[in-house]
Amino acid sequence: MKKENGYLSGLQDFLYENIPLTKAMALQPESITDSKITIKAPLANNINDKGSVFGGSSSALMIISAWSLIKILCDSHKIDADIVIHENICKWHKPLYDELTIEAELDDSYDFEQVRDKIENNRHFRINCDIKLLDNQREIYSTMTARYVIIPKK
Amino acid sequence: MKKENGYLSGLQDFLYENIPLTKAMALQPESITDSKITIKAPLANNINDKGSVFGGSSSALMIISAWSLIKILCDSHKIDADIVIHENICKWHKPLYDELTIEAELDDSYDFEQVRDKIENNRHFRINCDIKLLDNQREIYSTMTARYVIIPKK
Repeated sequence: MKKENGYLSGLQDFLYENIPLTKAMALQPESITDSKITIKAPLANNINDKGSVFGGSSSALMIISAWSLIKILCDSHKIDADIVIHENICKWHKPLYDELTIEAELDDSYDFEQVRDKIENNRHFRINCDIKLLDNQREIYSTMTARYVIIPKK
Repeated sequence: MKKENGYLSGLQDFLYENIPLTKAMALQPESITDSKITIKAPLANNINDKGSVFGGSSSALMIISAWSLIKILCDSHKIDADIVIHENICKWHKPLYDELTIEAELDDSYDFEQVRDKIENNRHFRINCDIKLLDNQREIYSTMTARYVIIPKK
């Protein structure tokens, strides 16, 4: 991906401006490749009554991380589309008492030239991501699979 | 359930104090019975880039609604336990451009006297909820099934 740093640095501004909950969660984009994005967030904004990460926060951060990856891949391929979540399955394995690291990765190698063709022909494109909640030592606390749909703008 | 209004009015204070994201989402408890809780939230706090409800917000609100129902049922049966989410499946059917109404309902009739016995004997208890995201006309926008575990406090 070209201009990846530019896309990544614009992401936080875009999210904070358009999705206020991402600011409340203090989401911080960390890095991106052609198939994976890493996002961080502090415990304090996302804490629960037991002093660990609130499951609703981790779920929301995992959902927006994969969405952001797909959004940046669409933008970098000049695909003018909306991206919406369709369904997900999430498992929480154990409580995390530390800063959150989220890694969202495409579940397969998708051809974004083909995605652009579909969108330009007014068709949808389904895309799946595998998402993990990790600590700073890369231990896994929660796993999600999520399906998104890329839809031509109306 | 006795004292249900007391439990419900204390819920918002408890959540806002202990789970800051619930305040950012402006969660408002609405009503509760022995098997169902209704919670509302405004669109503005939970909006996305398309002017509809952010999927991460609806997911987090659905997760905390069912958790709150189980917490109040435990409190009203004097069960001293932690409640943690274990897994969920969520589907988003269409975008909601209005105030959120969440209904979380136990998937079966659970005997909370039996739950208390298990917890007092240092055992876990699994409990499932069906959760819906509705508009004010009770049209359905998203559905979730979620499994929680009631765990003796350490």
